[in-house]
Amino acid sequence: MKFHKLPITEKNMLNVGIVGATGYAGEELIAILLRHPGVLITSLSAQIDKPRKISEIFSQFKNKLNLICALPDKSEIILKCDLVFLALPHTVSMEIAPKLLGAGKKVIDLSADYRLKDTKVYERFYKTRHKDKAHLREAVYGLPELYRVKIKKARLIANPGCYPTGAILGIVPLLVANIIDVDSIFIDAKSGFSGAGREAVARQEKEILNNLWAYKVNIHQHMPEIDQELSKFADGKVSVTFVPHILPLKRGILETIYLKIQNPKSKIQNLIDLYRKFYKKEPFVRILDEGSFPQLKNVVGTNFCEIGIHADAKKGVIIVIAALDNLLKGASGEAVQNLNIMYGFPEYTALV
Amino acid sequence: MKFHKLPITEKNMLNVGIVGATGYAGEELIAILLRHPGVLITSLSAQIDKPRKISEIFSQFKNKLNLICALPDKSEIILKCDLVFLALPHTVSMEIAPKLLGAGKKVIDLSADYRLKDTKVYERFYKTRHKDKAHLREAVYGLPELYRVKIKKARLIANPGCYPTGAILGIVPLLVANIIDVDSIFIDAKSGFSGAGREAVARQEKEILNNLWAYKVNIHQHMPEIDQELSKFADGKVSVTFVPHILPLKRGILETIYLKIQNPKSKIQNLIDLYRKFYKKEPFVRILDEGSFPQLKNVVGTNFCEIGIHADAKKGVIIVIAALDNLLKGASGEAVQNLNIMYGFPEYTALV
Amino acid sequence: MKFHKLPITEKNMLNVGIVGATGYAGEELIAILLRHPGVLITSLSAQIDKPRKISEIFSQFKNKLNLICALPDKSEIILKCDLVFLALPHTVSMEIAPKLLGAGKKVIDLSADYRLKDTKVYERFYKTRHKDKAHLREAVYGLPELYRVKIKKARLIANPGCYPTGAILGIVPLLVANIIDVDSIFIDAKSGFSGAGREAVARQEKEILNNLWAYKVNIHQHMPEIDQELSKFADGKVSVTFVPHILPLKRGILETIYLKIQNPKSKIQNLIDLYRKFYKKEPFVRILDEGSFPQLKNVVGTNFCEIGIHADAKKGVIIVIAALDNLLKGASGEAVQNLNIMYGFPEYTALV
Amino acid sequence: MKFHKLPITEKNMLNVGIVGATGYAGEELIAILLRHPGVLITSLSAQIDKPRKISEIFSQFKNKLNLICALPDKSEIILKCDLVFLALPHTVSMEIAPKLLGAGKKVIDLSADYRLKDTKVYERFYKTRHKDKAHLREAVYGLPELYRVKIKKARLIANPGCYPTGAILGIVPLLVANIIDVDSIFIDAKSGFSGAGREAVARQEKEILNNLWAYKVNIHQHMPEIDQELSKFADGKVSVTFVPHILPLKRGILETIYLKIQNPKSKIQNLIDLYRKFYKKEPFVRILDEGSFPQLKNVVGTNFCEIGIHADAKKGVIIVIAALDNLLKGASGEAVQNLNIMYGFPEYTALV
Repeated sequence: MKFHKLPITEKNMLNVGIVGATGYAGEELIAILLRHPGVLITSLSAQIDKPRKISEIFSQFKNKLNLICALPDKSEIILKCDLVFLALPHTVSMEIAPKLLGAGKKVIDLSADYRLKDTKVYERFYKTRHKDKAHLREAVYGLPELYRVKIKKARLIANPGCYPTGAILGIVPLLVANIIDVDSIFIDAKSGFSGAGREAVARQEKEILNNLWAYKVNIHQHMPEIDQELSKFADGKVSVTFVPHILPLKRGILETIYLKIQNPKSKIQNLIDLYRKFYKKEPFVRILDEGSFPQLKNVVGTNFCEIGIHADAKKGVIIVIAALDNLLKGASGEAVQNLNIMYGFPEYTALV
Repeated sequence: MKFHKLPITEKNMLNVGIVGATGYAGEELIAILLRHPGVLITSLSAQIDKPRKISEIFSQFKNKLNLICALPDKSEIILKCDLVFLALPHTVSMEIAPKLLGAGKKVIDLSADYRLKDTKVYERFYKTRHKDKAHLREAVYGLPELYRVKIKKARLIANPGCYPTGAILGIVPLLVANIIDVDSIFIDAKSGFSGAGREAVARQEKEILNNLWAYKVNIHQHMPEIDQELSKFADGKVSVTFVPHILPLKRGILETIYLKIQNPKSKIQNLIDLYRKFYKKEPFVRILDEGSFPQLKNVVGTNFCEIGIHADAKKGVIIVIAALDNLLKGASGEAVQNLNIMYGFPEYTALV
Repeated sequence: MKFHKLPITEKNMLNVGIVGATGYAGEELIAILLRHPGVLITSLSAQIDKPRKISEIFSQFKNKLNLICALPDKSEIILKCDLVFLALPHTVSMEIAPKLLGAGKKVIDLSADYRLKDTKVYERFYKTRHKDKAHLREAVYGLPELYRVKIKKARLIANPGCYPTGAILGIVPLLVANIIDVDSIFIDAKSGFSGAGREAVARQEKEILNNLWAYKVNIHQHMPEIDQELSKFADGKVSVTFVPHILPLKRGILETIYLKIQNPKSKIQNLIDLYRKFYKKEPFVRILDEGSFPQLKNVVGTNFCEIGIHADAKKGVIIVIAALDNLLKGASGEAVQNLNIMYGFPEYTALV
Repeated sequence: MKFHKLPITEKNMLNVGIVGATGYAGEELIAILLRHPGVLITSLSAQIDKPRKISEIFSQFKNKLNLICALPDKSEIILKCDLVFLALPHTVSMEIAPKLLGAGKKVIDLSADYRLKDTKVYERFYKTRHKDKAHLREAVYGLPELYRVKIKKARLIANPGCYPTGAILGIVPLLVANIIDVDSIFIDAKSGFSGAGREAVARQEKEILNNLWAYKVNIHQHMPEIDQELSKFADGKVSVTFVPHILPLKRGILETIYLKIQNPKSKIQNLIDLYRKFYKKEPFVRILDEGSFPQLKNVVGTNFCEIGIHADAKKGVIIVIAALDNLLKGASGEAVQNLNIMYGFPEYTALV
């Protein structure tokens, strides 16, 4: 019942680097990888004034990780790493990834740079030209529940955004079953403030405590990412309405999704069974019982996405509520899940 | 340079009682009425083990209000009061109100007992028979922005629920302008934990800090109240979809409302102007500028309802966000606004 | 039954300016003064990029205050104001105050510039030379409970620090009664994050939510202010030990003070009576009953300082716990209390 | 550099039971033990209405632990377990422990029942007679840093209280070095609300959010426990002054300790070195650098106790600040640390 493994020596361990180690996602990646029996962190870098011990920046790593975090030096990273996580702001990733890939390294990019296949859409939402269309084509969208086979063989993973992870997992089963009207998808998302990134939190003009507000109403950059992925499972182009809000807490996303049933004859009994079948082999998706809905507390600190479903035949409405930890299943946890798939580790390694 | 006013003697002041003085709404009513220059609080009662000074229960009223709070004694209340606020759980109000009204008193009921005109709906959502259909007919729904004229002459006010206040103020202008599809109204509401009432908070099994969850998904008792009021302004019966959530903060409601445009030719330019015209004389409704949306912090502690509006012609979607303080504009503040209307005080008295 | 007052025309009102209107203390001052029937706010200024309506900076003042906040212009302030509040960082106040005083204006300075009579101490703790020793001498320390008579006639008030207000009010009665050992005074202070000022909060590297930490341990600049004031009531120089902490909430200070009884024969019965007598005429000091101690919730949003006292004869120890709202009794509330004293308004005007 | 181990089969694993599995400490014990490679949880019980799957009570254990939690049945526990954790209210533990010990089981008691050697003191602070003086004598106080050798051979561990763990670790080095005046020890403790236990939190009358208050001022039951342990390292009986406070957060304790230097000639240079030497082999005590002090965020979620030290020779004062997670190093983490010592596992097993 317990997890047995062959003795792993440093020799046969996977050498991993993190660029952007000082942000929320980087901090979380370090914590997870320190628990990973097959991975050795060999390089940490970030936009930083001067080189500093990582244990000075994050005291929780004292006596656990004895590495210096410095400005990223591509040649050194190439020398030291087999795989590199890019936990960077968008536009910065695509300046580093090509060189790493060119040197035969694998890359898991947590930024948005390789997620949107349509560079026009990228340019509209990220206000900058795309500079690496070559690799964009080969990048695999790293949502294990949908693309596990491709992830296994990928060199470059575009790790999904936090909001898209919950929204896509919550909606795709209904699209595949052809139940809902694709023109009426409303996603009301609520996120802890860490979703905005450490820099943004520091700059923060708005008070977080005792407050709540919507932002980037119907213009958030994760919206086209959701559209792109949902469209693959629908007849025609999906265009969701998406409104994110910031909660007075640090971690966790809860998305309440309102959908309309395509036609009155749709079978909406047993939607919970439908979801359970769809995700039956998934280690990190939990479908709740009838009448139960997720609470943040139960997913924060885990790599799980919990989903609750409610249908109202008379109104012709389905409500799906999905919750996850934006820094784990919505970022660094999912990134390590992808690493596990790529290298044949049990998928839950370091994640439970 | 000193502050002078004509002596207001106890003789010419309005004598007011509060039944249910120890709950959140009662506490707030006392605080507001203490600032009201034309009102004297003369009676406080509640379901309480033994009579206690109100300043012992709420130390903030020490040296401000020297009254005993005891079990409600209808005869005594009738002797001492011109108007009575009922800040009670539903079903309890309708046992007290008839006697007070029979004795010629005015009543502002903060419970749900006199809000739903259809007793079948009341019975379905409140799991109890309605016992005072006579007064139910005459009760005026106390939303000043819509029913000011009737409130002026009313003996019995059914003070609106907290969620309905925001939802109705946010949607009615679109119904009146005949712009939206009444079959696609999705209200995603987020409330501070005080919305559940003091008793419920004490019983609370769920952790409030660092948590968020949806509850009574599509079955909350405020949903039929919203339906009833919206239907008055629509062609036919409105049936909204409503999902409330509990936030990790004490006060404040923010409702994000998703609506579909009725037909592509609808004029959705200048929606903000439409709202501004609709509410132009309202002292407590604030319509935000294009691209601005409410944050809880700006309405908590006030009697204002702030509304932000966004329209997307291509998607055929309108998003309305309304925010208010659930204990003020959503309960006790609105109740005093109604008192002011009934007795000819300036409507903002004690509320700014 | 209506609210009447003699017309207070702009002519006979006190014209007041606020320099530093955009900080926490400035925001609070505006809110209080808007409720003051004898005061007209006539000038708002701050270190600001470009002039902006105050109602744009703080939306809660919309429709209540129609003033532009711009860079401070001393000549204009002199023209428009009778009294000026300086809600500025230290060292900035002493550059503005002299000119205002020279023009015959009254000044209430919320910074530390005029609090410490010994400029050497000022220079050690504030790392800068004192530039206005002339006015420093005449400045009156604005703690009404101790210096009401002097405040009445003062031109320049040094409004006390937030921590000193609680600590001094909590300790002075014991010094006057000559009960405690002045070499063993330990003040453990806990403050909401607004105590650090809006700028500091924005810069904040430490996470506020779910966190607590001590800072400036035994070196905080409020320590010599407490020493100076306590020494006036003691035989010899008092030198307290002071450790402040930041709480995960916005407002409120609670100070737990540990003291040793001077000699075993000291009478420590009836300490609560001692405090009640000492503060018997004070409108804003509340002494709690035996066994009761303050909680932040009861003082936040008020101008009260609540004090609880416990003595242990066997151990020879006294514990005093004082609580107040750092932005009201600890800053802007106390400042308006001082204004009220200076101009003969009832002391509680605009403060209850 | 990684942790290697021989394959552990269910056969040679330690079978462990938890009585009181549904409280905060029980929940935490389960989480830790699930990560422990040498331990199998075989029995869960609690005061519970009817038997329920533990994964229904705590959904985070779904798919991880398939056990029913029922009322404690001593015979069954004896059959199934080698060691039993008692995570119970005081007075309940001493009714269960004797039978378990009598059957040859080992017991780690997280209640206070076996901590105070003097039953008169126990009876004064816990308001009940002690019923198991026999085992009280042999119980070992389970603070590994002081009693590791005895713990190794113990049958019955009295796991320390959360406040005492921090206070004792923070003060003992100064007592051993004979530096401080034992009559002047003031401990100002601040704890997250989980310190009060899940039951108490549910009953809670005080609001937790945006609040802070002191409780059991100088009468808290952990005070005699601190006295007892400190006295062992001092000349004569120590009697500390102890005031705990409840913070608006769930987990974590920070204790700010004020001490007086015994005589002016005491050597108080290099106190940090003194502490580092004292704790140099300790895996879970971290002494911070000069001028650094702990913040809760860095210890919550870990089994570490962090300590910062400041001395002021002129004032003759030492300030020690200790922080830990009350549910880990202050309860369940320390309990598993004790288990590891008793059974020869590396002391950090399941704790890092």
